[in-house]
Amino acid sequence: MTDQTGSGNRRTASAQGLQRIIISVDAMGGDRGPAAIVAGLSKSARKNKHIGFILHGDKAVLDPLVEKRDELRGICEVRHAEDVVTMDDKPSQILRTGKKTSMWSAIDCVKNGEAEVVVSCGNTGALMAMSMLRLRKLPGVSRPAIAVFWPSRNPIGFNIMLDGGADIRADEVDLLQYALMGASYARNGHGIQRPRVGLLNVGTEEHKGRAEIKAAAELIAEAAPVAKFDYIGFVEGGDLLSDRVDVIVTDGFTGNVALKTGEGTAKMVSEALREAFMATPLSRIAALIATTSLNRLRKRMDPRRSNGGVFLGLNGTVVKSHGSADATSFSAAIKLAFDLAQSGFNEKLAARVAYTPGDTQDAPALIENKASGKK
Amino acid sequence: MTDQTGSGNRRTASAQGLQRIIISVDAMGGDRGPAAIVAGLSKSARKNKHIGFILHGDKAVLDPLVEKRDELRGICEVRHAEDVVTMDDKPSQILRTGKKTSMWSAIDCVKNGEAEVVVSCGNTGALMAMSMLRLRKLPGVSRPAIAVFWPSRNPIGFNIMLDGGADIRADEVDLLQYALMGASYARNGHGIQRPRVGLLNVGTEEHKGRAEIKAAAELIAEAAPVAKFDYIGFVEGGDLLSDRVDVIVTDGFTGNVALKTGEGTAKMVSEALREAFMATPLSRIAALIATTSLNRLRKRMDPRRSNGGVFLGLNGTVVKSHGSADATSFSAAIKLAFDLAQSGFNEKLAARVAYTPGDTQDAPALIENKASGKK
Repeated sequence: MTDQTGSGNRRTASAQGLQRIIISVDAMGGDRGPAAIVAGLSKSARKNKHIGFILHGDKAVLDPLVEKRDELRGICEVRHAEDVVTMDDKPSQILRTGKKTSMWSAIDCVKNGEAEVVVSCGNTGALMAMSMLRLRKLPGVSRPAIAVFWPSRNPIGFNIMLDGGADIRADEVDLLQYALMGASYARNGHGIQRPRVGLLNVGTEEHKGRAEIKAAAELIAEAAPVAKFDYIGFVEGGDLLSDRVDVIVTDGFTGNVALKTGEGTAKMVSEALREAFMATPLSRIAALIATTSLNRLRKRMDPRRSNGGVFLGLNGTVVKSHGSADATSFSAAIKLAFDLAQSGFNEKLAARVAYTPGDTQDAPALIENKASGKK
Repeated sequence: MTDQTGSGNRRTASAQGLQRIIISVDAMGGDRGPAAIVAGLSKSARKNKHIGFILHGDKAVLDPLVEKRDELRGICEVRHAEDVVTMDDKPSQILRTGKKTSMWSAIDCVKNGEAEVVVSCGNTGALMAMSMLRLRKLPGVSRPAIAVFWPSRNPIGFNIMLDGGADIRADEVDLLQYALMGASYARNGHGIQRPRVGLLNVGTEEHKGRAEIKAAAELIAEAAPVAKFDYIGFVEGGDLLSDRVDVIVTDGFTGNVALKTGEGTAKMVSEALREAFMATPLSRIAALIATTSLNRLRKRMDPRRSNGGVFLGLNGTVVKSHGSADATSFSAAIKLAFDLAQSGFNEKLAARVAYTPGDTQDAPALIENKASGKK
């Protein structure tokens, strides 16, 4: 990447005259180390001629890894960063001491306009804290959120839930903003023209649930026609996987518990299934016969295929890949980052939360006034 | 049941001279109707010679169902109740209008000492509201909780989580009481001598989580040695199914979302598995070959085997069976009710939450003072 034209111009022209979208990648902090990250970039580069990378981390480790990959030649700049954010680092502390980490360096590339989006598989709390500090929140956004995927029977193969754990609390205005950001993300990031938005609650009856959820239900219903999504009302835990909703809104505490409960349940059922097939010689033969079908099932349930939580509500796009991401999985996160950058989704989202276009007189006030009433 | 000796003596001597534990059963309000309930009682009666029933509901419907079952002869009294609580009834309203329902009648049998425990598969919210009104809370308990099961790799085959959805809020003192009640239930209801108790949170690190959860962590750690359980600290969603904990404490909102998320995930994986086996002729043959192993798996994952949420913190034991319970499932709930009555667990639980025996000077104060500080 010799032809970087500097801040403000985020798409560089390569030697071949191709327009490339530059992705800033934090190479450190994942459970499998930088080799898996570089292998993921390599996978992505083979499939996509419009991509370029700025890779952040220990140059002595990264240079040899990158040099081995022909497909990364000329499209992957390595930037040295001497420190690494570990999974045990506390977010509050790393903000003070983390200036020399690969994560900080990777985020700053988006801040100064050298890259369109940053991808990291490091410590989620630290990544969010650092992103908020360096990129700042979008005007009108009180709490940014992490949008995560759930496998579902919907045509795109998953549902979107937010907040997956950026903040442990959310009041009614936060929940309204999650609905607006989630709908915008579903539309501009995943092509769902009119997303169906549901609010997670303990029951679908009107009289159930916490006060802030009831208040949020009214705000979201009010905003839906203006922001061009369908509000379908309360949904329950089981609906996270259902095809009657596209975007599920909840606070980050509940969202995170649900996410880990779902992962834990799926893992337990899979393990029990494996044990069942290994139990007897006959069942082992059956497993052999059904290999193709079982592989299809495994692929469908494979969380690696939909890897990548997206931070919404910041001046810049941040994709959080799973900490244990392998090459396939990291490449999926890179693809998501690329698609988001290409669609210019963050600019559209910023417009969506700052004001509501196609609006009546009340519509901008709807968001602004409610937000100014916050504690 | 002709030899009922009246209030205060809950064990009746049958004609054969057997001591029987009497269970009060709400026959109405389940999705499958009273026939499934009576079939469940019949199953239980065949296995257990020390059981007797008082069955509440429409006598015109119930009498013929009971008369058909030889094993219920002489041990099942039918009490007429003309009304039924439906799944759509609002708890607040049914408290005013529900005096003639089978649910009310079934609960009152425990209140007036005719039965030791009540079992219903009706509307959970109504059952909790009515139980609180008629049975009253145990001294010192602010919010009763619903204890539910999760399949796990622990020796007894499941973990216990509370609150599963009795109340949508819980402060630190409520969470402490859930820990005390859950540990007592695990010990006296399920034979776990020294239960391991964990507090559900978004991360296992000390610095994460809501204020009331951090405060609860301190209270629970303080109470653990006195109340003779092990506090293992924070657990995450995935731990609901793990074997490193026996009792998981959380508020009813989070607990209910987690429960439904887990059920939804398990259902989706099972459906996908069924589809995978039906996909090709070869996979259908494989399924046939592996029938025994797959049936074993199905049995292990069968929620019917561990059917029954238990309401903790009331003057009397209430078992909530799943709304869609069939005979097998309802019989499992009856077995749980019987075991709880036989162990005298509610008396032990009452003692546990009212004061802490084997205590230092501070121990009773620990509970009482904190409770009196509540809003």
